[in-house]
Amino acid sequence: MRYELYYWPSIQGRGEFVRLALEDAGADYLDVAREPKGMAAMMRAMESRSIKNPPFAPPFLKAGKLVIAQTANILFFLGPRLGLAPKNEPGRLWAHQLQLTIADWVAEAHDTHHPISGSLYYEDQKREAKRRAADFTAERMPKFFDYFEGILQRNSKGNEFLLGRQFSYIDLSLFQMIEGLRYAFPKAMKKLEKKYRRALALRDRVAARPRIARYLDSPRRIPFNQEGIFRCYPELEK
Amino acid sequence: MRYELYYWPSIQGRGEFVRLALEDAGADYLDVAREPKGMAAMMRAMESRSIKNPPFAPPFLKAGKLVIAQTANILFFLGPRLGLAPKNEPGRLWAHQLQLTIADWVAEAHDTHHPISGSLYYEDQKREAKRRAADFTAERMPKFFDYFEGILQRNSKGNEFLLGRQFSYIDLSLFQMIEGLRYAFPKAMKKLEKKYRRALALRDRVAARPRIARYLDSPRRIPFNQEGIFRCYPELEK
Repeated sequence: MRYELYYWPSIQGRGEFVRLALEDAGADYLDVAREPKGMAAMMRAMESRSIKNPPFAPPFLKAGKLVIAQTANILFFLGPRLGLAPKNEPGRLWAHQLQLTIADWVAEAHDTHHPISGSLYYEDQKREAKRRAADFTAERMPKFFDYFEGILQRNSKGNEFLLGRQFSYIDLSLFQMIEGLRYAFPKAMKKLEKKYRRALALRDRVAARPRIARYLDSPRRIPFNQEGIFRCYPELEK
Repeated sequence: MRYELYYWPSIQGRGEFVRLALEDAGADYLDVAREPKGMAAMMRAMESRSIKNPPFAPPFLKAGKLVIAQTANILFFLGPRLGLAPKNEPGRLWAHQLQLTIADWVAEAHDTHHPISGSLYYEDQKREAKRRAADFTAERMPKFFDYFEGILQRNSKGNEFLLGRQFSYIDLSLFQMIEGLRYAFPKAMKKLEKKYRRALALRDRVAARPRIARYLDSPRRIPFNQEGIFRCYPELEK
């Protein structure tokens, strides 16, 4: 099965959570919008009246006849197929629950630079962004980290990975979250990293996985930049 | 199977999407935190170290030995069991994709009155709330309504329900979204309702379902209020 991923070609964004899963699994996939004429293909697909189940927004995945949107939903589908999630229902639901919690965290990270509107420039909501970012770094980041650190700590079946012994897409997603936060809020992360040693050790284990290491080192990994979900505005940390 | 729902006892909030599904199905369930000493039981469950898969936040559902959190995840689990979703994988994923899009919409509705921080009072972020609410009513509400109206319009298998001929929890969720927006933004809704006739007709069909009608008329339906996700601050519509 060759998967087709449709996502904005110049940012990591939400699509990156799917890219990481496909890369770690060594899956055969096409990052459609990064191919020649790929953006036009993506826009056509989004506006097509012949897609029975239209996406509200990218990312979406074509898998044979299926078109699946919403990042967490795509990972729910791909997880067991890529060997990156349990196949049993309780395990799949638990992994998905964690991914949905990460999705909430991602949305909050985005809103630090766009607290008023996604269709206004950052510069037009900078004052509000400062307030929201201050709350995010002081209250929300520790709250989410506490939660994931606590899960690693309480796992009775080994605490190497979030699901215990089994590596899963959730580990990749927590890795990506940490990378993004390091880029966006380096000062806050410097403080927090001392406290959340299990999460950080997991981050390092993910980065060392051979396929992930090769991917991160390749041109396929788009660098973080000021168009994505994680953006580095130093004034938001003052 | 008697389900146990754990959610804040004084608001509709995110828990209401689960309550509506349980009510429409006539399921046997306990709304735990609304029982005597129920809040203490919920807090104990949240802090318990013996729950293997802890929730980040309510709502969560106990179903036998399973504990499932995240509203959309709970509905994904309950859907086929309550006869409120297809049993086949593509149908379940599509329903879930729509529910996740509603979850995004709900989060944006919440942020109209709390654009800076959930731990600050509304009064302390009122200025920002006015800006965010203006964007939400002018840009985001029409964008989400366009999407759901378009799905009702394009369904080839009948357009009575969002999935076509089959009634599902997504119809209940769109109903709840419309009810919430009518409470929070009556002026904006008055304008939009003329345009989104299919969505509004669906809302009326849901309200007329016998079990839903009885539920809405019962003390089990908590009235909208200024503690929930949908809040009515008239100054946010000026």
